[in-house]
Amino acid sequence: MNDDFLKKLIVPAETKIFMLIMDGLGGLPKEPGGLTELESADKPNMNALALHSALGLSSPAGPGIAVGSGPGHLAIFGYDPIENEIGRGALEALGVDFELGPDDVAARGNFCTVDENGILIDRRAGRIATPQAMQLAEILNKIRMDGVELFIRPVKEHRFAFVIRGEGLGAGVTKTDPLTDGVAPLAATGLDAPSQRTAEIVNRFIEKVRVALADEQPANMILLRGFDKLPALPKYQDRYGLNAAAIAVNGMYKGVARLAGMKILPVDGATIEDEFTTLERYWNDFDFFYLHIKQTDTHGEDGDFDRKVRVIEEVDQQVARAMALKPDVVIITGDHSSPTSLKSHSWHPVPLLLFSKNVREDGIGEFGERACVRGSLGIMPAKDVMLLALANAGRISKYGA
Amino acid sequence: MNDDFLKKLIVPAETKIFMLIMDGLGGLPKEPGGLTELESADKPNMNALALHSALGLSSPAGPGIAVGSGPGHLAIFGYDPIENEIGRGALEALGVDFELGPDDVAARGNFCTVDENGILIDRRAGRIATPQAMQLAEILNKIRMDGVELFIRPVKEHRFAFVIRGEGLGAGVTKTDPLTDGVAPLAATGLDAPSQRTAEIVNRFIEKVRVALADEQPANMILLRGFDKLPALPKYQDRYGLNAAAIAVNGMYKGVARLAGMKILPVDGATIEDEFTTLERYWNDFDFFYLHIKQTDTHGEDGDFDRKVRVIEEVDQQVARAMALKPDVVIITGDHSSPTSLKSHSWHPVPLLLFSKNVREDGIGEFGERACVRGSLGIMPAKDVMLLALANAGRISKYGA
Repeated sequence: MNDDFLKKLIVPAETKIFMLIMDGLGGLPKEPGGLTELESADKPNMNALALHSALGLSSPAGPGIAVGSGPGHLAIFGYDPIENEIGRGALEALGVDFELGPDDVAARGNFCTVDENGILIDRRAGRIATPQAMQLAEILNKIRMDGVELFIRPVKEHRFAFVIRGEGLGAGVTKTDPLTDGVAPLAATGLDAPSQRTAEIVNRFIEKVRVALADEQPANMILLRGFDKLPALPKYQDRYGLNAAAIAVNGMYKGVARLAGMKILPVDGATIEDEFTTLERYWNDFDFFYLHIKQTDTHGEDGDFDRKVRVIEEVDQQVARAMALKPDVVIITGDHSSPTSLKSHSWHPVPLLLFSKNVREDGIGEFGERACVRGSLGIMPAKDVMLLALANAGRISKYGA
Repeated sequence: MNDDFLKKLIVPAETKIFMLIMDGLGGLPKEPGGLTELESADKPNMNALALHSALGLSSPAGPGIAVGSGPGHLAIFGYDPIENEIGRGALEALGVDFELGPDDVAARGNFCTVDENGILIDRRAGRIATPQAMQLAEILNKIRMDGVELFIRPVKEHRFAFVIRGEGLGAGVTKTDPLTDGVAPLAATGLDAPSQRTAEIVNRFIEKVRVALADEQPANMILLRGFDKLPALPKYQDRYGLNAAAIAVNGMYKGVARLAGMKILPVDGATIEDEFTTLERYWNDFDFFYLHIKQTDTHGEDGDFDRKVRVIEEVDQQVARAMALKPDVVIITGDHSSPTSLKSHSWHPVPLLLFSKNVREDGIGEFGERACVRGSLGIMPAKDVMLLALANAGRISKYGA
């Protein structure tokens, strides 16, 4: 769907949409023929809601494609996750849960070893241990430069995410990593005026790094590559006419929500209950709420079936609080599947529930993978789910006569 | 599907396709958990047919998009309703059920008030009452010009649809409406040679209007804007090799069918029964029949659940007559949904039945929204339904060896 096409049809309404994203919600049975995590969970509130909902499965990026939380969220927020690719630098930052903003320039970094002449001896600094990298990052995070903020966030071993935050910075910056030992690191160069500004900052920063790490061994320098920004996306206000808010504990999700133009609401605490308290507190102030649950994915990736089940049960209790607010439209789904049996994200489509007084009720009183297969929404692209939510919220007018 | 790709595969056959479109067929229950209009209807013939059919749901323009009957018909006729947008002028004409032809140039019109110097005082002529506009339209419809026919059709208050019918007329004509008071109406200009011809006709017509309305108050002039034609579409004969006919009572549907190259058959009377009599009468003369039922939508938009049910029941009785003709392929669906509970067109996909001796029968002996969710066709784009009909009619040959 073309944005211009949709924009002409969007109309205002006095309705509220609640989107509950359980990260990595979709699952698989512990043993063949058994129940999935969601099917195993005791979840009376979601089941009751399912009875009066339309069910289906949301597919983040099409058949067979397992997505990260970045593209998974872009999709369920209504953006094409393949057209709007999140580049390597931005991915590295999001991957360590850095709250990346739309103007931030991100890059992938390596700690490396150079000799006394500045010639690269080891691009990976002997793959130093992560705790050591964390100490080095602490040193580098103390470096200050006028007009910008700089962030080094360790990833694993010698790898880190690097972010420059400032105004008017371009991301068309060439790598400092020559991708081979035996030569000096390259100077960063900018491909246009705003990127030249970034490149100058990068080069000055690297000089400060050289000084700060001079006495460290083996990691006495850094290399940067894959400079980019998050993709520029049309904002919810402009695209859908929605005054949208996000409730999330982890930085990555706040970053992607901010990209969509959502206001990030403060959560007093870090529990699931705390997030729903924020929902109640701000209910009158916005007409779209995205609420993110991290722990379903955490336990999916840990392979802890029972704990994933318990998180779903905990969320189910909170769903009663959300429903007491009388949302006009409710979406419950995930950004992707994370079956505990696979201990990773997977390509399986994600159970999807759409509630409003105008849906064709499927009359299926259960929210689960196989129940959703019987639902009337079918397997639908995640990026189209917002269109159904908006239609049910009375926010899309008729096309043509 | 690319037209060139399809055209290479189309082969002739001695088969007949019958497409029955109940306008606004899809519905919702009167109360949550209840039956829809279609589910409530006593329809033994359609249910018997459903048992030996493939069922599913047709989606006119994708998730969440409610369409007008224009785009809804384009879609079920096999054309992309978003790529082939019907412009504002053509929409205004179709909206008042004007039988717009493929060569007609249409525009949106206002009655307006000008002072003695021809300067606009009120672009909307004080929003004159519709009956007054109807009287004025009668005056203007008497204006004659060589080589063209001119039509003024009142819409509401000061608004009307304007149509020029003639040969070789372009629609690239600029508006005469300056969109502000205090200035004179603009002269129409043409953006290319055929449109210059149209513009000249428009300007001469407006001079005649000025004379004809000179003594009227407050509406003593007209403004025109949004000139366009219906989109040019490949015809059924060229695209599918089908000798196609349309049976409809209302002008708008005849207009869209003519756009697809269908021959408009005369209906002796205006009842559903009369339409099926036409079907019988011309059965030997064509190999594709589109038959349109208006009243399902009328009662959907009125919000009259019981009358919508009764129309479906009346159609069901006539379906027996159609089946007695032994069509090779039968499609029953709607151009969009019009649930009585919403009193408007809606985005819900439309129940779809495809019968032929070669379908995989779903063995579901009911034609209804939830029965169709269980069907093998799934939710499919309406524009692809014709491909299934053609295949079942033996009219698409194998692609590749």
